[in-house]
Amino acid sequence: MGRAFLLRLVGREDGTTVMNTFGRSFRFTSFGESHGAAIGGVVDGMPAGVPVDPAYVQRLMARRRPGQPGMTGASARQEADEVRFLSGIYEGRTLGTPVAFVMENRDARSADYAAMADSYRPSHADDTYDAKYGWRDARGGGRASARETAARVAAGALAQCFLETAGVKVYAYTEQIGAVRCGAPYAAYDLARVYDAPLYCPAPDAAAAMEAELKRCAAEGDTVGGCVRGVIRGLPKGCGEPVYDKLTARLAAAMMGINAARGFEVGMGFEAAAMHGSEHNDAWAGVDAQGVLRTECNLCGGVRGGISTGEDIWFRVAFKPIATLGRPVGLWHKQEGLRAQTVGGRHDVCCVPRAVPVVEAMAALTVADLLLAYRSRLPETGGGTVPAHR
Amino acid sequence: MGRAFLLRLVGREDGTTVMNTFGRSFRFTSFGESHGAAIGGVVDGMPAGVPVDPAYVQRLMARRRPGQPGMTGASARQEADEVRFLSGIYEGRTLGTPVAFVMENRDARSADYAAMADSYRPSHADDTYDAKYGWRDARGGGRASARETAARVAAGALAQCFLETAGVKVYAYTEQIGAVRCGAPYAAYDLARVYDAPLYCPAPDAAAAMEAELKRCAAEGDTVGGCVRGVIRGLPKGCGEPVYDKLTARLAAAMMGINAARGFEVGMGFEAAAMHGSEHNDAWAGVDAQGVLRTECNLCGGVRGGISTGEDIWFRVAFKPIATLGRPVGLWHKQEGLRAQTVGGRHDVCCVPRAVPVVEAMAALTVADLLLAYRSRLPETGGGTVPAHR
Amino acid sequence: MGRAFLLRLVGREDGTTVMNTFGRSFRFTSFGESHGAAIGGVVDGMPAGVPVDPAYVQRLMARRRPGQPGMTGASARQEADEVRFLSGIYEGRTLGTPVAFVMENRDARSADYAAMADSYRPSHADDTYDAKYGWRDARGGGRASARETAARVAAGALAQCFLETAGVKVYAYTEQIGAVRCGAPYAAYDLARVYDAPLYCPAPDAAAAMEAELKRCAAEGDTVGGCVRGVIRGLPKGCGEPVYDKLTARLAAAMMGINAARGFEVGMGFEAAAMHGSEHNDAWAGVDAQGVLRTECNLCGGVRGGISTGEDIWFRVAFKPIATLGRPVGLWHKQEGLRAQTVGGRHDVCCVPRAVPVVEAMAALTVADLLLAYRSRLPETGGGTVPAHR
Amino acid sequence: MGRAFLLRLVGREDGTTVMNTFGRSFRFTSFGESHGAAIGGVVDGMPAGVPVDPAYVQRLMARRRPGQPGMTGASARQEADEVRFLSGIYEGRTLGTPVAFVMENRDARSADYAAMADSYRPSHADDTYDAKYGWRDARGGGRASARETAARVAAGALAQCFLETAGVKVYAYTEQIGAVRCGAPYAAYDLARVYDAPLYCPAPDAAAAMEAELKRCAAEGDTVGGCVRGVIRGLPKGCGEPVYDKLTARLAAAMMGINAARGFEVGMGFEAAAMHGSEHNDAWAGVDAQGVLRTECNLCGGVRGGISTGEDIWFRVAFKPIATLGRPVGLWHKQEGLRAQTVGGRHDVCCVPRAVPVVEAMAALTVADLLLAYRSRLPETGGGTVPAHR
Repeated sequence: MGRAFLLRLVGREDGTTVMNTFGRSFRFTSFGESHGAAIGGVVDGMPAGVPVDPAYVQRLMARRRPGQPGMTGASARQEADEVRFLSGIYEGRTLGTPVAFVMENRDARSADYAAMADSYRPSHADDTYDAKYGWRDARGGGRASARETAARVAAGALAQCFLETAGVKVYAYTEQIGAVRCGAPYAAYDLARVYDAPLYCPAPDAAAAMEAELKRCAAEGDTVGGCVRGVIRGLPKGCGEPVYDKLTARLAAAMMGINAARGFEVGMGFEAAAMHGSEHNDAWAGVDAQGVLRTECNLCGGVRGGISTGEDIWFRVAFKPIATLGRPVGLWHKQEGLRAQTVGGRHDVCCVPRAVPVVEAMAALTVADLLLAYRSRLPETGGGTVPAHR
Repeated sequence: MGRAFLLRLVGREDGTTVMNTFGRSFRFTSFGESHGAAIGGVVDGMPAGVPVDPAYVQRLMARRRPGQPGMTGASARQEADEVRFLSGIYEGRTLGTPVAFVMENRDARSADYAAMADSYRPSHADDTYDAKYGWRDARGGGRASARETAARVAAGALAQCFLETAGVKVYAYTEQIGAVRCGAPYAAYDLARVYDAPLYCPAPDAAAAMEAELKRCAAEGDTVGGCVRGVIRGLPKGCGEPVYDKLTARLAAAMMGINAARGFEVGMGFEAAAMHGSEHNDAWAGVDAQGVLRTECNLCGGVRGGISTGEDIWFRVAFKPIATLGRPVGLWHKQEGLRAQTVGGRHDVCCVPRAVPVVEAMAALTVADLLLAYRSRLPETGGGTVPAHR
Repeated sequence: MGRAFLLRLVGREDGTTVMNTFGRSFRFTSFGESHGAAIGGVVDGMPAGVPVDPAYVQRLMARRRPGQPGMTGASARQEADEVRFLSGIYEGRTLGTPVAFVMENRDARSADYAAMADSYRPSHADDTYDAKYGWRDARGGGRASARETAARVAAGALAQCFLETAGVKVYAYTEQIGAVRCGAPYAAYDLARVYDAPLYCPAPDAAAAMEAELKRCAAEGDTVGGCVRGVIRGLPKGCGEPVYDKLTARLAAAMMGINAARGFEVGMGFEAAAMHGSEHNDAWAGVDAQGVLRTECNLCGGVRGGISTGEDIWFRVAFKPIATLGRPVGLWHKQEGLRAQTVGGRHDVCCVPRAVPVVEAMAALTVADLLLAYRSRLPETGGGTVPAHR
Repeated sequence: MGRAFLLRLVGREDGTTVMNTFGRSFRFTSFGESHGAAIGGVVDGMPAGVPVDPAYVQRLMARRRPGQPGMTGASARQEADEVRFLSGIYEGRTLGTPVAFVMENRDARSADYAAMADSYRPSHADDTYDAKYGWRDARGGGRASARETAARVAAGALAQCFLETAGVKVYAYTEQIGAVRCGAPYAAYDLARVYDAPLYCPAPDAAAAMEAELKRCAAEGDTVGGCVRGVIRGLPKGCGEPVYDKLTARLAAAMMGINAARGFEVGMGFEAAAMHGSEHNDAWAGVDAQGVLRTECNLCGGVRGGISTGEDIWFRVAFKPIATLGRPVGLWHKQEGLRAQTVGGRHDVCCVPRAVPVVEAMAALTVADLLLAYRSRLPETGGGTVPAHR
């Protein structure tokens, strides 16, 4: 074997999530309870020199806030979600040191929740937190509240600032609410304009039917589940580890770590279980202008053997209906046992539209981590090249 | 607030997978290529004093081997998968030091594969490995071969030896092959006898239909996908981290890290997306004889807020059809582009039955890791108790 | 072998430091530049139910502030170092969720430093930061400033709140400044009263000589190095991992991660190199009232084979002299090369007294992490017990 | 500020050691007891395409074996230490997949040690292992035996194969045995020829005096300590993390993780404590032909602010005398208490010469890890470049 050899660094897409820290190389640690002083986070591993525009971050924060156009039944809690950066950014660019940020909690009405300290709501984490920690901050769900996802969106915005410099784009949209689904695959929609659409659903007819479903639920004091579709574009071929730490495993963990997530699939997902190899195999389409070897249909979802193919990565996340209803439910009281009660507080009818920017953020954080590892590979030529095989 | 306080250690279900190491506290590192000298692994973090019976390990290995009853179309490769332990076990018990094991590769026919070094099979990891590493061992799929899963089963057997001492049981079975599904939920089946059933499918009628489907596929040179159901019993309430590192996130990563996995769901999974809160909420059923607070239907799948509830954890994994067909497919040759060819080698018609012990192994490894962290919590009474709140 | 077997969990003192996160189970992530908006940190993995008294934390913070009694030549920068807790504490006790804290930077005079952006001071990190990150925040040393150690002391205070509940105590004191050393071994001093002594040196005669040395240095515009002695009491026998992750390795990394640290030793340290086994071996003294097997002299420093022995752990850290002098030094200007200049800013003559609470903090963080892992072991009796050997 | 900005990835020298795994990106997991079936390890994260010559590995193994020229009193145990590679190498080059290797234990005389199961030798890890694990393999020290270091040398050889491609060299030598020290600083010696010198000591007169000291010890049944000097050349400027995860912290942990290590220092180390800033500061010497900004004396030891400077990294490790003497010592018997006894087995008089290749191996593993992280930084120009500051 006489051909020249190139020393190739192993992409070290190595690791993931530890307690309240997400990611290994691009690391995000969050903190905060729903009704504590503040929520926030620290992003460590942010490359140096990345432009960060606070107005851009604030724009992404706004997408997660309640009261967006068409979000029937949105929670009445009003937080500015104003992100204050404390470190790691100097003259508009990152220093490479940790970027810390804080959002003060202002509209926290603790009285609504105080009575809940000894009661367990059905399908909430009240009893499991008590089992794990021995007690909990019952105000507004404490650390289990979806308020924590505001910190995810802020960190995701930082990740997107980095991805922007690498030409990688992350998208998400509302694909399903209750029984209503978008009729077309993701490629049919203009993903760059999702946030202009009602309910962040790019299919106008589906969006209208979803709105009707939300209104019906609100009227009945009920809630409903749904699905978010995510798409990652521009990730270079070769990201991800092939065995336990597959790109698909990383993405699945990121998505299943979002509140209320119940399922994850990539490419054809569960439909693939009913398919034959002759249908599911991706026929080669040839090499495109950018040098990417393309398939006819990319049914694999942009990942082969746990490693990115250079084609779009597409995936889907299922969310259960919000557990807090606008009607009496059976609470379990620690001393008194079962009793029916209407739970106070302010809640949405469906988490899906507000989950769209959260899915986007978690995908951005995941991909930023993978991309850092990918870049640890040596360039095709240069100092690390190994001379021809002896 | 005058009640007594108990110091409670945070369960440190902290971390996951790094490249070829799975888990953090109960850590499994594997190695080996399909046609290299051997495959094997090292389990670090194994508690000391656990009895390990090599015959038990070998029994579990046998479940993953080809040629099981009813496995139509099974690959013809014959490996004894004899596990040789090199360290960490002394007088039949673990020492607490790393347990290393090796399985020699004996039935490796490299000539079948040598011609593939410059060709990329459709829906395989050939091209992505080349992109990531610059070259690959093309013999039998190298590291990407399902042969690697033999090491997972051996490590899973060690995890099960540990779980045995804690009363935790892990089960898996074939729930779907192609369009054929088991008709009943998991609770209808005797999970302890799954491996006595054809195709590891506990529903005899479904198993018969699956056999027919496999025969049809084999006759047509085709393959087919399917789903594995997993169930974890006896895990104490309070395992798992509530935010990014949820039990569901850990389990999802474990399952999506298995070759050919395309989707993961827990509890009602994707069906939950179409449900209303009034249907999906788990009504409280009361406290059972073991002191576990139970729900009527456990639709949440044994996890609330990322933390185990003490009820059964039930989940499902979707597998795509095997990509290697018994008929000509279009290969992409690095120099010559597309060309049709029949790929040699020995392959199954459906990976699902052989994936059953692999799902079980990965679930056991995940739960062993969680359980170690859970045990870092202080006992309810004792030295660490904090006196009554001041 | 017929004796009863006990299942013993492997203490998982597993892991350490990643970039700006210290520790694995008891994890501290810090952020902040010297002249940025704020410094602070997040402690994750803090056990739930630990009482945290903000006044106690503030008391520890005061020990690191400049202007302590007898600290000749202390820097003139005045920061209140007021710790504001943002999360993780509720009604005076920890929740088990991340504890975040912030200290605002108020007395930051950037003008003093602005001219330094293109100059490299000798024996500072100016050029290496530029090499690593491409640019830096030159104001007051940015992230490399000793100001960052304020966050360590705050996190260390939280660790000590936890250690308090376990009966573990951490001490440190000034043992050497320049050529002046304490005459007696640590056991001769009342470690609980170190912070009442001038320069945190418990030997009054040595302290007086150190003061004289500091005055002489201040008068000459010079600086001087020194050593801090650290002692850990009450750590149970059995903490630490025996091979790569020894207790001594963990402690060494913690100490060598402090600004200006140049050396670490445990027990007899470098003196052991010149000793014979017949001198250095620790003769057994017998079992004491608490059941600890004691040695005559504990020359091993409380660690055998990387694992704690239950006796005092004693170690020493060497610090180099502060590199900023009160006299002209040769700066390297990126464009112009070498030029002599007096560097502005406010600096100490010796870092050692202010390093004492930092050494204590890092030791507390290290031991808190080890103790969490230690507690993951099963109790001597109970559910996990394995029946007698077969 | 109008100058062009370059996006700079943060070098992610992130992480260290977990139980029996050393390093994060270049990860080495070892296994094996002294008298078990085999010892060995798995290196994960090895870059693909690195040439590995088994004869080179075997050559390095030979340096650690007993019976080297001049090693008076070397242990009589004779192991071939033949390294068998099981995976990760194909046609003489690494695949990027895990490289596993095994060395069988052949010359294991268990009978010598069997009587020790209930006795604790002084200054050994017998009692701490028992405390941690509940029992131990007492044969030959089990996992605590220095035999484990053979696996370190094999893994270090793999690391050196990688470093070779990057122009980084790692050296070590015997600097001190007992009271005898080399008279000159490291720069005076030809480091490439250390292994040709008796006792691996490059100063002939010191070596002769050391030999005499070893003979005297052997005659008296005593042992003696010593120091190893380590030097790393060619590591690029900018490796290491500046806060908790400093290059010095990583190196300290690596060295303190070696059996019998008692102290670590870098550059002037403990001597720096007695120096003034005006002496210790490194005056700039100017930029050399390779573009490295050099200092007059490099007293900092090649690290400023935790980050490599591009100059030589020089450090020292202190080892205590071997605890097993050739004369009766007091053993602690679990049932019977203290009793004097001569301990059998085969042992060296001084560990230092055999520790030289181990120090070298651990330095190589540390630096390989840092170098992988360093390479994750973007090249100075190219796709990731950020356009000029807005």
